[in-house]
Amino acid sequence: MRIGEGVEWGLHCCLTLAWLGEEPVSTAKFATLFELPPAYLKKRLQALVRAGILTSTPGAKGGFLLARPPERITLMDVVTALEGPDEAFRCTEIRQRGVEPSPEFARPCGVAAAMRKAELAWRRELAAQSVADLVAAAPPGAAARMRQRYARL
Amino acid sequence: MRIGEGVEWGLHCCLTLAWLGEEPVSTAKFATLFELPPAYLKKRLQALVRAGILTSTPGAKGGFLLARPPERITLMDVVTALEGPDEAFRCTEIRQRGVEPSPEFARPCGVAAAMRKAELAWRRELAAQSVADLVAAAPPGAAARMRQRYARL
Repeated sequence: MRIGEGVEWGLHCCLTLAWLGEEPVSTAKFATLFELPPAYLKKRLQALVRAGILTSTPGAKGGFLLARPPERITLMDVVTALEGPDEAFRCTEIRQRGVEPSPEFARPCGVAAAMRKAELAWRRELAAQSVADLVAAAPPGAAARMRQRYARL
Repeated sequence: MRIGEGVEWGLHCCLTLAWLGEEPVSTAKFATLFELPPAYLKKRLQALVRAGILTSTPGAKGGFLLARPPERITLMDVVTALEGPDEAFRCTEIRQRGVEPSPEFARPCGVAAAMRKAELAWRRELAAQSVADLVAAAPPGAAARMRQRYARL
């Protein structure tokens, strides 16, 4: 099981936008800041726009901004936007193979239910943490240092 | 993010072995029961043997058995055996790119820590559920029905 690298990129971009405040940041500048491939990064940022997490304005002064306050963007929002809404465990109902149809199959498969229970714990924890929490957990001065770096780009 | 189909296969095989008791089950019989590709299934079963979850005995009467009581095989054991021990979220430390080395990087990245917190909730829930819990959650008569099916193979 692996979460795509886009989640790390997306979360750092959201955190950076929270630090920079009202400054729209272009794909090119994000790519420079984090030494990431611009074309791949752009796809991830566009997915965050489609999910309503970022807004995008075109033009030389344009770029991406958080679409809502950092406390209203959860890690679950970002993960879902980038990894899709599907459950990580996909039940293919192998319990039903080679067996006559039975009313017991109306009940969810116990294996799937157990895996789902664990996945819900993961989702609950992701939903309980926001970009504002990332801001709060950052080392002292991190926002100021990012603003200085950004000003020099 | 996606958990491989092998986890569904492996859990159903463990549950089946718990139902059948002391009956060693061959790859071929598991493959027939669940209509699975024998070669791929065998790799998954061998991974469970390497992880100490199953034992394997060769020969015509041989097959796989649970290596320990069902209450001592957790879903976490099976998932780790089949998906590997790595964390789903891999931090590549993009926060450090293009920046001078700094003592603040001795602290874990806040993004990675937040993602890890959620993943630990998932792992804790998987570790809290055992194959014995799957047995307990199955519909009434499921073990007897499996024993009947198996006897007809």
